[in-house]
Amino acid sequence: MTKLEQLKESLAVVSDLNGAASVLGWDQQTYMPPGGAAARAEQLATLGRMAHEAFISDEIGELLEGALAESTGSPSDSDESCLLCVVRRDYEKARKVPPVLVAGIARAASLGMEVWVQARKDSNFPLFQPAFQTILDLQRDLAQCLGFEESPYDALLDQYEPGMKKSGLVQIFSELKAGLVPLVQSISERLDRVDDGVLHRTYPEADQWAFGLEAARRLGYDFQRGRQDKSVHPFTTSFSVNDVRITTRVDEQFLPTALFGTLHECGHALYEQGISQKLERSPLAGGASLGVHESQSRLWENLVGRSRSFWKFFFPHVQRAFPQNLQDASLDCFYRSINRVEPSLIRVEADEVTYNLHILLRFELESDLVEGRLALADLPEAWNAGMKASLGVVPPNDAQGVLQDVHWSNGLIGYFPTYALGNLLSVQLFEKAQSAIPLLTAEIERGDFQSLLDWLRRNIHEHGRKFLPSQLIQRATGEPLRAVPYLRYLREKYSEIYR
Amino acid sequence: MTKLEQLKESLAVVSDLNGAASVLGWDQQTYMPPGGAAARAEQLATLGRMAHEAFISDEIGELLEGALAESTGSPSDSDESCLLCVVRRDYEKARKVPPVLVAGIARAASLGMEVWVQARKDSNFPLFQPAFQTILDLQRDLAQCLGFEESPYDALLDQYEPGMKKSGLVQIFSELKAGLVPLVQSISERLDRVDDGVLHRTYPEADQWAFGLEAARRLGYDFQRGRQDKSVHPFTTSFSVNDVRITTRVDEQFLPTALFGTLHECGHALYEQGISQKLERSPLAGGASLGVHESQSRLWENLVGRSRSFWKFFFPHVQRAFPQNLQDASLDCFYRSINRVEPSLIRVEADEVTYNLHILLRFELESDLVEGRLALADLPEAWNAGMKASLGVVPPNDAQGVLQDVHWSNGLIGYFPTYALGNLLSVQLFEKAQSAIPLLTAEIERGDFQSLLDWLRRNIHEHGRKFLPSQLIQRATGEPLRAVPYLRYLREKYSEIYR
Repeated sequence: MTKLEQLKESLAVVSDLNGAASVLGWDQQTYMPPGGAAARAEQLATLGRMAHEAFISDEIGELLEGALAESTGSPSDSDESCLLCVVRRDYEKARKVPPVLVAGIARAASLGMEVWVQARKDSNFPLFQPAFQTILDLQRDLAQCLGFEESPYDALLDQYEPGMKKSGLVQIFSELKAGLVPLVQSISERLDRVDDGVLHRTYPEADQWAFGLEAARRLGYDFQRGRQDKSVHPFTTSFSVNDVRITTRVDEQFLPTALFGTLHECGHALYEQGISQKLERSPLAGGASLGVHESQSRLWENLVGRSRSFWKFFFPHVQRAFPQNLQDASLDCFYRSINRVEPSLIRVEADEVTYNLHILLRFELESDLVEGRLALADLPEAWNAGMKASLGVVPPNDAQGVLQDVHWSNGLIGYFPTYALGNLLSVQLFEKAQSAIPLLTAEIERGDFQSLLDWLRRNIHEHGRKFLPSQLIQRATGEPLRAVPYLRYLREKYSEIYR
Repeated sequence: MTKLEQLKESLAVVSDLNGAASVLGWDQQTYMPPGGAAARAEQLATLGRMAHEAFISDEIGELLEGALAESTGSPSDSDESCLLCVVRRDYEKARKVPPVLVAGIARAASLGMEVWVQARKDSNFPLFQPAFQTILDLQRDLAQCLGFEESPYDALLDQYEPGMKKSGLVQIFSELKAGLVPLVQSISERLDRVDDGVLHRTYPEADQWAFGLEAARRLGYDFQRGRQDKSVHPFTTSFSVNDVRITTRVDEQFLPTALFGTLHECGHALYEQGISQKLERSPLAGGASLGVHESQSRLWENLVGRSRSFWKFFFPHVQRAFPQNLQDASLDCFYRSINRVEPSLIRVEADEVTYNLHILLRFELESDLVEGRLALADLPEAWNAGMKASLGVVPPNDAQGVLQDVHWSNGLIGYFPTYALGNLLSVQLFEKAQSAIPLLTAEIERGDFQSLLDWLRRNIHEHGRKFLPSQLIQRATGEPLRAVPYLRYLREKYSEIYR
């Protein structure tokens, strides 16, 4: 066996352990009885530790060196070159972090989650503050270990969005904010032009479930290689290119929760199902970054799923599924309902227009925290001031404010920006697909998503983690990530809806 | 940390890996989409290999030696003494088997299963024969590695029923056979005295499911620490003492399939849920043997679940659950129906009386194969002759004969006898519990199973793998495993039913 083959074999073992951990994680959130929690935590810790140890082993380092020495002359975008490049990057980063810090971060995250649940319940930020301080300190230590040039935030961000820097975000996000704030303000003056009462009727769970599955199937989600289950928080998980699962939750009093939840996760799942089979059991069998992943979920959820074209096809279906609620509704009324805009407190419930403002605030706050410009004790006040300034609303309590999201409690700092990047990219990709597929709108209007999926497969999905996000975006769209197309898309769509 | 503590920590890692593998196995048989199969096989192979390597490591050997040296004076039935004793036994056995043989056995089993599926479908034994020959040869090699005094069969049997020998089986089984054959013959002359037509009506799946859950709950199965799902073949699996799951299958045209399937698996699950929490994450957190495990499933399925007392309580419930089928049936008719006896071809469908004759035949054949007295080419003929001699029926083809069970194709030789041992033990234990709990029958008649469960917890469950089956049986019943109580039980029960 060549060194490369040996390396691949060793990496496949790591991949098996990670895949096994994902199965355990999926079960934990779908079917596990309450009693299983303690043992599950131990099993996941053991699998995580063994996967980490197997990956950072000297053996992998030697095989990697050997394989790099062997590999001369294969093109830089070949599977092999990309594999070696990605593994070297991952390996060097992983070796920089001492195991004791890895363990400390895991412990702090697990404790942080527990405290956060209680703190949010009681709307008690001071209760959460000490645990959050520990998490923040450890994340700064992590940034020091990983290394950075300009800001420690860069090191954290790079874990989720390889190659992206804080300075790049500042540039894109300030352009985005400059466009969003007046747009939100303008819509805020016309809120009464859209009424979504029709979505708040009683939609039986079983019918919602069946309709969601039908929609996912139409989009191209392969149920021979996936399935949908229920969980408290919707997610997508992958145990292999050929076993990619989604979950959703159902609210019988609000149709969009399950429906757009399914379309969103389906977008993630189409990405994972579309990764080249050749990359199976390798570190390349995953998404290029969280931002690129989110571009896929948002593209299917919003660019497709909240478009008029999509509902030209699906509206008669949804009417048939819920005749008592929708037989007297019009396509136009339904379309406007699912695109209702309202500045609100909770990120996960936010519409397309206001959503990114939530992210921009979190980005500003967490970079201030990481760079030491903001003390944790002052965070709730800064949060509320930021909400007021950008969205015009102020949380009545911290549970609906600074404590609303689980991420920070789990040690995820530098993670939120990827949501906004995904939104921006979704529009760039969709516009590029539209110009590549002249009849795309007509196809969507008759419920045919094959050309779009094929285009995404070729330009994004099949490459897995082969390229850095910036390379992948350049290859697919011919330009870098930009805010302008997203702003233009919002303005066009919402000036029509809100006149 | 003492050597014992270090040893426990290392064993806990092995336990985590095995628990993780069990989750993957459960998912494979319940929810996994077809596409997931290939990656799942890799993941399970990796977990199995890592658990094996971690267990047979020199480090465990040294810690074990150190812990044994430390441990002087703790009573021989203490958790620690038993742990060291069991780990030494397991470790010495595991170290005797070369990894290349372990891998060969796994490969042959996986290939054997695949060929067997086809061979059974085509009722083509010669198609299966070469794969079976490989399996048999490897099992003989395994017996040589493990070592034995009298028969290579002892070494194989010992994996499933520690401490049991072929000579012991021969003695118990010949007594059993001598009692069963005339009993079966006598009932065969009176088959028309019991008609089970009432069980062959249409029983809707959802109602069967709900009734099964209700019965399991009443028996004491803790759904906070378990759950029931559907699978093609019912099984029980355990990821921890606090996460023990069962599966069943439902036949809408035959009530007993799901009902007694649930009671059977529930018996296994009550055992696993009853293991002392102190043994969690250790090699002692499991059943003493497959025979002892089967005694628990059979006790709840047959001694309890097919008793008149049980149905005195449950018959009105089952009538209410299926009024259209059962409102005109009597308790007596129902009781006789679920205890109908008929010599038949298929082991898994066999009644209490004829069941063990299926096992005895398999035991005779597989010990002849292992000891080289029977050639594989002659197996189908020997099978058919054995069926004729003991049950009076002859399979029309090999699919319904020698190819019916999956076990051999999977490398399980020396495994079948544990089913019969479980049957015998179930009666010994139940009789002992009856004498310890004078009002047991009355309690069962009012749907109260707590005293029985408590007795089993104290005498069997909580000890996990601490004792050898022979020790455990002696402690619980005051006597060794015997065939006489089982024969007496059958004669009494069935002479009443068949008069």
